Amino acid sequence: MPDVDLEALIQGIIGRNRRMIAKAMTLIESRVSEHQQMAAKIMEKILPLTGGSIRLGVTGVPGVGKSTFIENLGIYLADSGQQVAVLAVDPSSKRSGGSILGDKTRMEKLSAHANGFIRPSPAGDTLGGVAARTREMMLVCEAAGFDAVLVETVGVGQSETAVAAMVDFFLVLMIAGAGDELQGIKKGVLELADGIAINKADGDNQDRVARAKKDLENAMHLILPATAAWHTPVMTCSSVVEKGTVPVWETVLKHRETVKACGEFEQRRKNQALEWMWTLVDEGLKQMFKNNQQIDVQIPVVSNQVAKGEISPSAAARMLLSYL
Amino acid sequence: MPDVDLEALIQGIIGRNRRMIAKAMTLIESRVSEHQQMAAKIMEKILPLTGGSIRLGVTGVPGVGKSTFIENLGIYLADSGQQVAVLAVDPSSKRSGGSILGDKTRMEKLSAHANGFIRPSPAGDTLGGVAARTREMMLVCEAAGFDAVLVETVGVGQSETAVAAMVDFFLVLMIAGAGDELQGIKKGVLELADGIAINKADGDNQDRVARAKKDLENAMHLILPATAAWHTPVMTCSSVVEKGTVPVWETVLKHRETVKACGEFEQRRKNQALEWMWTLVDEGLKQMFKNNQQIDVQIPVVSNQVAKGEISPSAAARMLLSYL
Repeated sequence: MPDVDLEALIQGIIGRNRRMIAKAMTLIESRVSEHQQMAAKIMEKILPLTGGSIRLGVTGVPGVGKSTFIENLGIYLADSGQQVAVLAVDPSSKRSGGSILGDKTRMEKLSAHANGFIRPSPAGDTLGGVAARTREMMLVCEAAGFDAVLVETVGVGQSETAVAAMVDFFLVLMIAGAGDELQGIKKGVLELADGIAINKADGDNQDRVARAKKDLENAMHLILPATAAWHTPVMTCSSVVEKGTVPVWETVLKHRETVKACGEFEQRRKNQALEWMWTLVDEGLKQMFKNNQQIDVQIPVVSNQVAKGEISPSAAARMLLSYL
Repeated sequence: MPDVDLEALIQGIIGRNRRMIAKAMTLIESRVSEHQQMAAKIMEKILPLTGGSIRLGVTGVPGVGKSTFIENLGIYLADSGQQVAVLAVDPSSKRSGGSILGDKTRMEKLSAHANGFIRPSPAGDTLGGVAARTREMMLVCEAAGFDAVLVETVGVGQSETAVAAMVDFFLVLMIAGAGDELQGIKKGVLELADGIAINKADGDNQDRVARAKKDLENAMHLILPATAAWHTPVMTCSSVVEKGTVPVWETVLKHRETVKACGEFEQRRKNQALEWMWTLVDEGLKQMFKNNQQIDVQIPVVSNQVAKGEISPSAAARMLLSYL
């Protein structure tokens, strides 16, 4: 990308030109310092145009039917005339250009839809880096006038926390297990949820789903809600009979109305922006630490000594910091 | 403390001389650079003598009867001939010397017991600092041959996470609420628990406690245990009728046996030491960042701009980091 006309690129984004949007996202992803500077300029220019989309995060472990749910929801919105973008946060992805959310065959219908736009997870070494790039891509989609941005995560590492920290509504998809256990719950994730949907509520699975719903509702009584004005509902949905997708979306809209009315919407977005800043500062500090060659050599040595109890963690930390 | 004879101090610690132990802890707490260097020397000397105590963490919001529970347990252990130390992590405490766990009237019996030793929460600006000092105090107690170290936290900020990261067993105390809700649950704390005890299980409260126990047991099915080999039990206890304290302690011992048999005990302690090292490194990096005067001046300015949406979090983070 040697000759990028920044002004043309920005106008292309604003005009919702998909090729230009993709080009801007490629700059955001690039590790070339010159590209990063261009991406930073684009972000500053489009910042005043951002903030208008409904930002929905969706998580769930593999097997809960996350992609099908997102595609069904995306097509429902796109068919009703709304512009829908799907992004993903997957810190484990080592993709090379072209694959869609890690898998070319996924979300075929939505990616072919005139109102749909799909972009796979950006590559990156750290979750913070992947999340920061996804967040900037989300802002590009907002400047382009997308009505809804759906951010998917596969739940590797702390990626749910990263996605919950960039969306207005965080949806946790689950399925009922074979016994009285619920599948698809990861530590800490219930506490991030603005809504829970038990998927695959169809056929002979419905009894199990009803039991799971009751268990989850009880559990949610024991967990403080992510937003004071909103009690996290437990819904059911199904992709087979195509039911549930619309009620889930209506819950997202209802939540939006509730938190906008009491001011928590604005507050959450402000807090998210500040938290993001601090996450990037932390990342920057750690990067600086790990880029120091002496420290890089010492880390495995002192880690081993600490694990064996030969030196104290305090002495090890002091030693590592002393190289700065 | 101008003339500290380090060798005498270390011998005093090993001989379980309470005055010497308290003196070492005062050095650990001090912000005077010379004292910190002495404390670091003491820690390195006693490190080989540490690791022998049962490390029990206890949390619970104010009102659950935490101090009474800890004192009852402490006296039970002390009466049976064991040496018991009680430490505390309270990042909100602004104590001046002399108060005991923030309140002179608390744990009077245990502090007067020949086998008991009580030290209030060290003062500190950051949770990491308070936790690090408490952890070093715990190691001093171990070198002094205490059989059990009980670490209390009031649950301010992330202090439960900090305490769970330094103990072998993390006990969460709760009480049953008036309705079908449970009081005394803080976000994320159930996931740290190796055991839960519902306190005040006496008198006309017993029905509510039984219901709360069932609800919590259901909830714990939805949460991954802190240790794979151990399913977090929900117990009940009472200080009024003095029942429950001994069964809770027996559960701690049973847990110890289980995790030692499968190797998770050693692994947890190793991981805790490494995590502690990284926490201290993070603290050190952040301290360095905040000690920079230009950055200190800029933080409120850019935070305000980010909150107002005038500059992006990325640009703000880049700007702050550029001053290093």
